[in-house]
Amino acid sequence: KRQGFPEVIYGEGKTIEQIEPIMEKLIEKHGKVMVTRLDKEKGESLVSTFPLAHYDYTARILLYGKPENYYGGEVMVVCAGTSDLFVAEEAAITAEWMGCKVKRLYDVGVAGIDRLLAFREEITNADVLIVIAGMEGALPSVIGGLVQRPVIAVPTSVGYGAHLQGITPLLAMLSSCSSGMSVVNIDNGFGAAYQAALILKLVSEGVNHEIVIS
Amino acid sequence: KRQGFPEVIYGEGKTIEQIEPIMEKLIEKHGKVMVTRLDKEKGESLVSTFPLAHYDYTARILLYGKPENYYGGEVMVVCAGTSDLFVAEEAAITAEWMGCKVKRLYDVGVAGIDRLLAFREEITNADVLIVIAGMEGALPSVIGGLVQRPVIAVPTSVGYGAHLQGITPLLAMLSSCSSGMSVVNIDNGFGAAYQAALILKLVSEGVNHEIVIS
Amino acid sequence: KRQGFPEVIYGEGKTIEQIEPIMEKLIEKHGKVMVTRLDKEKGESLVSTFPLAHYDYTARILLYGKPENYYGGEVMVVCAGTSDLFVAEEAAITAEWMGCKVKRLYDVGVAGIDRLLAFREEITNADVLIVIAGMEGALPSVIGGLVQRPVIAVPTSVGYGAHLQGITPLLAMLSSCSSGMSVVNIDNGFGAAYQAALILKLVSEGVNHEIVIS
Amino acid sequence: KRQGFPEVIYGEGKTIEQIEPIMEKLIEKHGKVMVTRLDKEKGESLVSTFPLAHYDYTARILLYGKPENYYGGEVMVVCAGTSDLFVAEEAAITAEWMGCKVKRLYDVGVAGIDRLLAFREEITNADVLIVIAGMEGALPSVIGGLVQRPVIAVPTSVGYGAHLQGITPLLAMLSSCSSGMSVVNIDNGFGAAYQAALILKLVSEGVNHEIVIS
Amino acid sequence: KRQGFPEVIYGEGKTIEQIEPIMEKLIEKHGKVMVTRLDKEKGESLVSTFPLAHYDYTARILLYGKPENYYGGEVMVVCAGTSDLFVAEEAAITAEWMGCKVKRLYDVGVAGIDRLLAFREEITNADVLIVIAGMEGALPSVIGGLVQRPVIAVPTSVGYGAHLQGITPLLAMLSSCSSGMSVVNIDNGFGAAYQAALILKLVSEGVNHEIVIS
Amino acid sequence: KRQGFPEVIYGEGKTIEQIEPIMEKLIEKHGKVMVTRLDKEKGESLVSTFPLAHYDYTARILLYGKPENYYGGEVMVVCAGTSDLFVAEEAAITAEWMGCKVKRLYDVGVAGIDRLLAFREEITNADVLIVIAGMEGALPSVIGGLVQRPVIAVPTSVGYGAHLQGITPLLAMLSSCSSGMSVVNIDNGFGAAYQAALILKLVSEGVNHEIVIS
Amino acid sequence: KRQGFPEVIYGEGKTIEQIEPIMEKLIEKHGKVMVTRLDKEKGESLVSTFPLAHYDYTARILLYGKPENYYGGEVMVVCAGTSDLFVAEEAAITAEWMGCKVKRLYDVGVAGIDRLLAFREEITNADVLIVIAGMEGALPSVIGGLVQRPVIAVPTSVGYGAHLQGITPLLAMLSSCSSGMSVVNIDNGFGAAYQAALILKLVSEGVNHEIVIS
Amino acid sequence: KRQGFPEVIYGEGKTIEQIEPIMEKLIEKHGKVMVTRLDKEKGESLVSTFPLAHYDYTARILLYGKPENYYGGEVMVVCAGTSDLFVAEEAAITAEWMGCKVKRLYDVGVAGIDRLLAFREEITNADVLIVIAGMEGALPSVIGGLVQRPVIAVPTSVGYGAHLQGITPLLAMLSSCSSGMSVVNIDNGFGAAYQAALILKLVSEGVNHEIVIS
Ligand SMILES: Nc1ncnc2c1ncn2[C@@H]1O[C@H](COP(=O)(O)O)[C@@H](O)[C@H]1O
Ligand SMILES: Nc1ncnc2c1ncn2[C@@H]1O[C@H](COP(=O)(O)O)[C@@H](O)[C@H]1O
Ligand SMILES: Nc1ncnc2c1ncn2[C@@H]1O[C@H](COP(=O)(O)O)[C@@H](O)[C@H]1O
Ligand SMILES: Nc1ncnc2c1ncn2[C@@H]1O[C@H](COP(=O)(O)O)[C@@H](O)[C@H]1O
Ligand SMILES: [Mg+2]
Ligand SMILES: [Mg+2]
Ligand SMILES: [Mg+2]
Ligand SMILES: [Mg+2]
Ligand SMILES: [Mg+2]
Ligand SMILES: [Mg+2]
Ligand SMILES: [Mg+2]
Ligand SMILES: [Mg+2]
Repeated sequence: KRQGFPEVIYGEGKTIEQIEPIMEKLIEKHGKVMVTRLDKEKGESLVSTFPLAHYDYTARILLYGKPENYYGGEVMVVCAGTSDLFVAEEAAITAEWMGCKVKRLYDVGVAGIDRLLAFREEITNADVLIVIAGMEGALPSVIGGLVQRPVIAVPTSVGYGAHLQGITPLLAMLSSCSSGMSVVNIDNGFGAAYQAALILKLVSEGVNHEIVIS
Repeated sequence: KRQGFPEVIYGEGKTIEQIEPIMEKLIEKHGKVMVTRLDKEKGESLVSTFPLAHYDYTARILLYGKPENYYGGEVMVVCAGTSDLFVAEEAAITAEWMGCKVKRLYDVGVAGIDRLLAFREEITNADVLIVIAGMEGALPSVIGGLVQRPVIAVPTSVGYGAHLQGITPLLAMLSSCSSGMSVVNIDNGFGAAYQAALILKLVSEGVNHEIVIS
Repeated sequence: KRQGFPEVIYGEGKTIEQIEPIMEKLIEKHGKVMVTRLDKEKGESLVSTFPLAHYDYTARILLYGKPENYYGGEVMVVCAGTSDLFVAEEAAITAEWMGCKVKRLYDVGVAGIDRLLAFREEITNADVLIVIAGMEGALPSVIGGLVQRPVIAVPTSVGYGAHLQGITPLLAMLSSCSSGMSVVNIDNGFGAAYQAALILKLVSEGVNHEIVIS
Repeated sequence: KRQGFPEVIYGEGKTIEQIEPIMEKLIEKHGKVMVTRLDKEKGESLVSTFPLAHYDYTARILLYGKPENYYGGEVMVVCAGTSDLFVAEEAAITAEWMGCKVKRLYDVGVAGIDRLLAFREEITNADVLIVIAGMEGALPSVIGGLVQRPVIAVPTSVGYGAHLQGITPLLAMLSSCSSGMSVVNIDNGFGAAYQAALILKLVSEGVNHEIVIS
Repeated sequence: KRQGFPEVIYGEGKTIEQIEPIMEKLIEKHGKVMVTRLDKEKGESLVSTFPLAHYDYTARILLYGKPENYYGGEVMVVCAGTSDLFVAEEAAITAEWMGCKVKRLYDVGVAGIDRLLAFREEITNADVLIVIAGMEGALPSVIGGLVQRPVIAVPTSVGYGAHLQGITPLLAMLSSCSSGMSVVNIDNGFGAAYQAALILKLVSEGVNHEIVIS
Repeated sequence: KRQGFPEVIYGEGKTIEQIEPIMEKLIEKHGKVMVTRLDKEKGESLVSTFPLAHYDYTARILLYGKPENYYGGEVMVVCAGTSDLFVAEEAAITAEWMGCKVKRLYDVGVAGIDRLLAFREEITNADVLIVIAGMEGALPSVIGGLVQRPVIAVPTSVGYGAHLQGITPLLAMLSSCSSGMSVVNIDNGFGAAYQAALILKLVSEGVNHEIVIS
Repeated sequence: KRQGFPEVIYGEGKTIEQIEPIMEKLIEKHGKVMVTRLDKEKGESLVSTFPLAHYDYTARILLYGKPENYYGGEVMVVCAGTSDLFVAEEAAITAEWMGCKVKRLYDVGVAGIDRLLAFREEITNADVLIVIAGMEGALPSVIGGLVQRPVIAVPTSVGYGAHLQGITPLLAMLSSCSSGMSVVNIDNGFGAAYQAALILKLVSEGVNHEIVIS
Repeated sequence: KRQGFPEVIYGEGKTIEQIEPIMEKLIEKHGKVMVTRLDKEKGESLVSTFPLAHYDYTARILLYGKPENYYGGEVMVVCAGTSDLFVAEEAAITAEWMGCKVKRLYDVGVAGIDRLLAFREEITNADVLIVIAGMEGALPSVIGGLVQRPVIAVPTSVGYGAHLQGITPLLAMLSSCSSGMSVVNIDNGFGAAYQAALILKLVSEGVNHEIVIS
């Protein structure tokens, strides 16, 4: 049995000359590769070199190949609005590329609680939730209170002043009064999706240990 | 017309020997006085000196005398649970002592959104709202979205680790996505109540300027 | 009766392609819309698409339509000098667009206390005050001591070094020795104006609760 | 089907007089209750009131009752040494009380990598891992690289100087180069265990959604 | 000509056993000595050993001996209220002990600008000013604007929450819009007085260089 | 007698259109004006408008006119090397323009203590010292120990990493073990020079108060 | 050949019951052991259990046994005064216990540069230097400039206000303009001594690699 | 005997006009010079002026001349991947230029512990180690546990969000549980190499002091 997902390239600060050979090696070895944090110019240039690759402008991700395994269950990616879309799509596309079904819920925010609660059924039906928020980062606390499933919270760098480039929602999420929630780095949609996929992978593969009645 | 509320004594770090003469002077001048941030021992000692005074153990406030004016309208003081009570009561008692009617809503938190929304009518009927929260400080954002009245948010020092003694909810509230909300210092129930009272005072006294149709 | 002000678009980081459809929808629904934090280029482009709109270069705000309601009373916007003008005008124009009469007092600073006190009568006559300050953020403390009306303080990002992009005046205002003052995020002229308008709206509409003599 | 774990009492800063009635209510409703962050004195006093309760001196937790459901799989709790034991045991006891089998691996640290790797098989066999570290917080990064299962990292307040009461390992864990890892608040063994239990609960109950082959 | 003031002992964290021999040596050499940051118990014990010494309870300073030189001019020490007295007296007593005449102005704060301005003549007559403020630290900015003499600002640790134990007024004073002002460490009344005395010493001794007409 | 130095324009963030009318007004009123923090392009443009003005490329200052008064004594401006020159020259040129004689000592740093001490006589002869340092900010501590004259320390933004854009030397200078030293904001050569000039002005004008023998 | 120094026990927060068995095991295995950060009470109690052990009150260290190897060369431990003695002695005693000759130079500070330079010969003769400083942390920069030997800098928690419990000298030392210097954690005399001993051990054992002429 | 390495020029923020004369002077005096933090454009321009100089594009260093002395032993420079190469090469090239043999180990990271341990023999054979890490900065802790030689840790600015431009790995390294490790400023490959060279220089020259058997 394979040991997990083929490696992913972190594109930030890498030149095309550095990325191309790594891509080639990974494609050869795994038949697939993903590059995150890749700007438009580099993305388009790499697509012309690797015509089977696809570049997503919102997520700033380059994709090549398909998932090796598909996992049962559904990852729900929730965010409040258009400003956090780049993080939400980084999460959604990563999770899909790793073999997860993804449901996007992108038009809800805590200041409009009725609109959020209109989706209560979809929310409580999700198997794993990635909840993305900039500003004060309150959304995961509210959603965490609605569900009995793991919530992975992602603070974003969207805000100004006292928001401190995302440090504020990061600290707020870590201080959340909602149980069952954990947090990843600012804007790290990729990391949240990776853990969500590991959870669905565990469900698909089953646990190593029997139930115990102590 | 008088220029406002008689002065209040900030008790923190003051000795009984320092507080007594100030109290006497203010009682003589205004017939009333309030001492905030007063610990139990000092509170009880001052009550034995000023038998007409009352000491509140939760708010840690000493009260003497009655409001000079009563203002129409209602200040609602909202908080999530028992840990933030000391701030909530500092706010509530200050507002009452300044002549405001106060409604307390103390058992609601964003992780239990249904319980909070069960009080939606009371919340939307309030004239001014003081919303107190420790931990991640999300409550004012949700309430701000429900009302069209001024919300004054108070972060509290209740939490640990990433909560940074209240700096985290303070910054979160300042970064809130809810409009119409302003913020006071950590644990400053007094300050929030003072501004809430100024707002109801303005309503009672009326504005200085006519409506303009530009 | 309507539940408040029509929504406002936060222009920062949004493309023209994202803003146009939102504007259209809001104009259709409310007959009016406002876009804040909009740079000159986008502002001019949107004016050519919406010829009835007006773009303000100092406040970086696009306005379309007129207030639905006009409120009695007057919001005074106070700041020290030319550097903070962009925040002051964001506050002033927002308040006007929401139906408030605005008085600007822009040439006063605490280092020239006589000039400030020359306007004492105007200041004490204001119904609500928005006080804007960069640097050390001392102006709201002095003004708060002159008035018995609500003061909303706005720190600005204007300064250098120990000023920490506005964190210093923000913290200073929160620590103010003046009572009756609350604070909004750095450069958040919009938020201050929104709350000021809510206060005058409350005065115009009247409170929900009778005066009580406890 | 029940909506999750019965509520837990956060004991910090609560008096015995406040805790007792909440315990009674929860025992009546759920037949079980847990109180965290409870000091020795209060713990022993509550045990004399509730003789069926058990107080753990290391974890500072009071337990009453048994899990309603037992989940398959195993939570591994890993930490480096004796100083972090109080957090490790908060995690381990919480997870057990929620129905999980727990394996403790307490004598491993990154500065003695051979000793850590001696347990490689146990580590890679775990279904969910809670990795606790004070000081520089490096342990979760190393373990995350060994496994393809979800890792929940817990920074602790154990350290001095540049360690900043746990802020340093917290930020380090959030910046980890290991994928598949998320983080909870400083010393929050409870929160990590809660999410680990939610993951095993999901495995036991199964996902709501079929596998999709896109 | 002597090279300046005899050395001063910083008492914080030193035992009586450590302080006594240093005092003896300095008395022998200079006929005078001062110990700052000395708590009551140690102060009283040292007075019983050195009967010619005097201990000041507010400033927490032990004094022995008289100034060697007296300087012309006057240091004015200004602060807002009783909470900052311990810093103000540390400054005043240090300056006096170094040979300066000191004028205390202790009952003025920016929130009561009229009371402050009632002393305008005394303030503008001062030769050097030490201005002490806790909370938001605004007082030096206002006073700096009134005078054409050097202002040394001292932030204090008196405040709570966003005040950050004095970091907030420290940063605020450094960001002041008033020219001609410099700042010393939090609560450092001694350091401010030392520099003020150096300025009056310079005046008394005269400069080394002639006037130049470039 | 005039109340001090004519006002100075802070050029940062002001347009030429804003600066020109202020310059005209000040020239008319005082016959002189200075603009600080002015970039090369604006500086040259203003020189073409005001041919009698001079623009200094290192200090980024525009000067117009001569001092009204010349003060006896000498300000020494000390810094370690070429990187801090822009701050040193802002200080030196400001002090000269205000009527002070300035001595520059620009090639000394604490890591080469012998070279610094080679100038000991010049240093101890100075009447007021402005000591400028980036990096760890140690220079003022060493110099403060050599002299019995006021030292005004200026931290600079020159450094990287742990230097935090000047916050590190700022805090270090405030924590200095040298007495008689005060500190101004990061890069604030202007402010240091302003206070130095006030000190020499005081010497020239003499104090208001006689020597007292208590 | 043995792999290094026997392990050392970090006593902070450990009970006597936890320390005793670890000591026994290490004594059995290595014939020696050291416990750091041990308070007086525990130290004396352990001495009564292990009569061959010695407890140092200043360094707060318990020593048992002698070095296995003695290394050539000399570690010089430098600090400014009595307040930093506890860190200096932690360093000195650790280095001695590990087999190094130690020279103490404890009465020198940058504000008295002549006294420091009186020891220039001893300083330049040292083989490795541990330089300890609280306050602004300037001492290592000056000493680093005098020598061509490795300097290990130790910031201490001794100071107040802007000193931030040692964060300020820590950052200052990291920003030092002196080359050849590295830094350890606040108050970490042990760590500095450990690295100094590793350097002398390397000298004693010789390098693994020949000189190369490239 | 000469007192050490010829001076090095810190290129950041210096113009070509400033660098050229300093280079000339140092070449004349020492026959060699090194310029660090030099961008490509300036590097190439200086090479055309000094044809014997070599510019390294990764390290951003200009080299002129050869080491005066060659030292025995080997400096190992370790880092995890391509992002930190610019710091690793700054360290490696500096050490070589100062006369040290350097071994590079650039493809190891703590998340792939097996690959790192594949080089265990090379690592334990190194005489001095420079370990470079961005992200969470865990690599030096693991390597420090493998060796009994001095480890100099260098945090890098490579990372995002909670990484705080390198402050996070800096603090983590200072809090490391590995003994025998010290730390230099963020990205300071030069400083680490300088100290490593001083250590090998000490080995080559021998210590000044005999072994002592106490
Ligand atoms: N957007 C991202 N945020 C955080 N980590 C990432 C991201 N993209 C990739 N990674 C991680 O970076 C690793 C690749 O780094 P590199 O070898 O520098 O390309 C992958 O294995 C991932 O674990
Ligand atoms: N709990 C409180 N928090 C903040 N400010 C307070 C508080 N209580 C009183 N004050 C303010 O402190 C002033 C009195 O300060 P003092 O003269 O030191 O007693 C009052 O006028 C109030 O403005
Ligand atoms: N040690 C802990 N750390 C963080 N959260 C906790 C802890 N113990 C309990 N909680 C949470 O606190 C809630 C109870 O808070 P309270 O109602 O104040 O007792 C529980 O539902 C948990 O979600
Ligand atoms: N470089 C500077 N740094 C700090 N303050 C300055 C500087 N230059 C001018 N100022 C101050 O700024 C004031 C003018 O500000 P403004 O009216 O905005 O031009 C002057 O009176 C000075 O007090
Ligand atoms: Mg939940
Ligand atoms: Mg609202
Ligand atoms: Mg007021
Ligand atoms: Mg993994
Ligand atoms: Mg002035
Ligand atoms: Mg001096
Ligand atoms: Mg050196
Ligand atoms: Mg080691």
